Amino acid sequence: MHAVSQARSSVRRDITTSEDTIFTVNAIAAPSATEPLVRTTVERRDPGPRDVLIEISYAGICHSDIHTVRGEWGEVPYPLTVGHEIVGHVTKVGAEVTRHKVGDRVGVGCMVNSCRECANCRAGQEQYCLNGNVGTYASTDRDGTVTQGGYSTHIVVDEDFVLRVPEAIPHEAAAPLLCAGITTYSPLAHWKAGPGKKVAVVGMGGLGHMAVKIAVAMGAEVTVLSQTLGKKDDGLRFGAEHYHATSDPATFEALADTFDLIVNTVSAPIDVNAYLRLLRLDGTMVNVGAPPEALQVLVFTLFSNRRSFAGSSIGGIAETQEMLDFCAEHGIAPEIELIDADRVNEAYERVLTSDVRYRFVIDVDSLR
Amino acid sequence: MHAVSQARSSVRRDITTSEDTIFTVNAIAAPSATEPLVRTTVERRDPGPRDVLIEISYAGICHSDIHTVRGEWGEVPYPLTVGHEIVGHVTKVGAEVTRHKVGDRVGVGCMVNSCRECANCRAGQEQYCLNGNVGTYASTDRDGTVTQGGYSTHIVVDEDFVLRVPEAIPHEAAAPLLCAGITTYSPLAHWKAGPGKKVAVVGMGGLGHMAVKIAVAMGAEVTVLSQTLGKKDDGLRFGAEHYHATSDPATFEALADTFDLIVNTVSAPIDVNAYLRLLRLDGTMVNVGAPPEALQVLVFTLFSNRRSFAGSSIGGIAETQEMLDFCAEHGIAPEIELIDADRVNEAYERVLTSDVRYRFVIDVDSLR
Repeated sequence: MHAVSQARSSVRRDITTSEDTIFTVNAIAAPSATEPLVRTTVERRDPGPRDVLIEISYAGICHSDIHTVRGEWGEVPYPLTVGHEIVGHVTKVGAEVTRHKVGDRVGVGCMVNSCRECANCRAGQEQYCLNGNVGTYASTDRDGTVTQGGYSTHIVVDEDFVLRVPEAIPHEAAAPLLCAGITTYSPLAHWKAGPGKKVAVVGMGGLGHMAVKIAVAMGAEVTVLSQTLGKKDDGLRFGAEHYHATSDPATFEALADTFDLIVNTVSAPIDVNAYLRLLRLDGTMVNVGAPPEALQVLVFTLFSNRRSFAGSSIGGIAETQEMLDFCAEHGIAPEIELIDADRVNEAYERVLTSDVRYRFVIDVDSLR
Repeated sequence: MHAVSQARSSVRRDITTSEDTIFTVNAIAAPSATEPLVRTTVERRDPGPRDVLIEISYAGICHSDIHTVRGEWGEVPYPLTVGHEIVGHVTKVGAEVTRHKVGDRVGVGCMVNSCRECANCRAGQEQYCLNGNVGTYASTDRDGTVTQGGYSTHIVVDEDFVLRVPEAIPHEAAAPLLCAGITTYSPLAHWKAGPGKKVAVVGMGGLGHMAVKIAVAMGAEVTVLSQTLGKKDDGLRFGAEHYHATSDPATFEALADTFDLIVNTVSAPIDVNAYLRLLRLDGTMVNVGAPPEALQVLVFTLFSNRRSFAGSSIGGIAETQEMLDFCAEHGIAPEIELIDADRVNEAYERVLTSDVRYRFVIDVDSLR
């Protein structure tokens, strides 16, 4: 509890000074690609005129965090604090902020800024910013500093990249919606999952279980394709109508030419043609998991049924708000396991062995 | 000329007998995967109640013909007569035929039947028949015989798979529309090439030059991506606004994030990610060329701009008629080089070295 008061007092002290003030807040960070995460502090800028200071309550653990801190997705500026599933409350706003006010329950996802000028930003698709959006961590911010993520007590974010989190969503369960939620909502909405559509979700992890819940709420007929039947009861409880083991070759025979949309949440390389063959006429398989290896696509597989293989990355800011409102309206929230900050390294190992139902969330109070 | 009278007399003789009559017509066929095509005869069934007997005038040479006779797409029942770009005139109709009458100018493409019962057939997408449509050659017909293609003087086809060829299309140039035309028209129509859309056509061969003409007629802004600038004058004459050499790496830098649709007509394996990177937000690259090797797709390439990689195979019967009518209306026809049947083997070699502008068509009179 010493850490809490220390961090809080440091915030309070610095906020009363000039806008150029940098203040430090408690956090956990990766010192290198191979070492465990450790307690430390990170620096935050004092909120500028359009910034919002957020006291973080909860931060989800995303598989991307692990890929990033371990250097699997390219070089990383260490030490690095990750975390892009962030919820908390507004504790200060800049003079020009209009979207949020002190006390609001808010969230931050995978982006904290974008160019706002390119065709994609103008189309509300900041996730596809042609000049590269500013990631919530490990990105170069507009002031030249490296962004630090949500495994920390506070964060300062431009108001346009701060989402309203409806009160109907349990606070601690809201965090994973900011990445796992929008990452699955966006392709389901874009490819029009809904009544009369058959949707398959590949993988029943953090992303997959959200995809099931959201697709069911959209009205689609949902099938889960998981390695084993180990989570079948959960899948059916989340609203899936069918659940098949991909370890059984009969699955791929029985379901040939079936789905309008397959959302593949698995990051490991898979036999993509085997899944593509499950698409019916004009069906699309969209990857939201990101294997670094190239996938071997046979064009003849795409010829049948005029199939498409696509990718989708998180979602735009307006769409993220739409997703949060949709989840509130439909009573959707992730299944989570709440942990203290000191258990993050252990949680990482369990994520890597799929030993979590279905998302770890860090109780950031444990960092104060 | 002896062959002509022989074939014609054989047709006349047998048509006057029962419906079970088989008659022989002149043709050229591949005796094996490694031998040149030779003059021979093939058997045709006497037209049944729903069949149409067509006296073939012209037959286009498609790259698929070469892949097939050389056994590159799987085992083939030799001897085999290929050819699925067929135009001619109706010379006899079965008692129940209503769509066509004697004297009509008609065409036959890549299919001569389908199951007519599956979801795709019922949707008018017989090219994606879930039970396998009957190809114009090398397929097993409903009577158990192997279908023989259009490098012959006559063919007998179910009326539902016979197209009307408008008089506005020059007769000898109409043949390639039945494969090259529909193969490019279908994806351009499906992915809505039109005003305001930027379309790239990869490859300026038989398929590519048709893709350019059709996309231009649809109102799209068309760019050709060809290995060299050797056919640039042609491309611009066909209506393309831009023409770039893919041998120049600067092409891929200059055109990043540009196209709504890329139609890839190249059958050879390409660096698919380099082309995918040219797609703008929600762009699709669709392969109509069919490399037998798997293509190496990086999911991270698909993530940017929410790109799709798709395949498209010929088109449905109704859509093929729509394409023929569209070409007649817009004055579109393939550029062809007319040859006698004895020059087919030489033409094959020239197709393989891209030495044709842009489609060989066999004058079937030379077979009579």
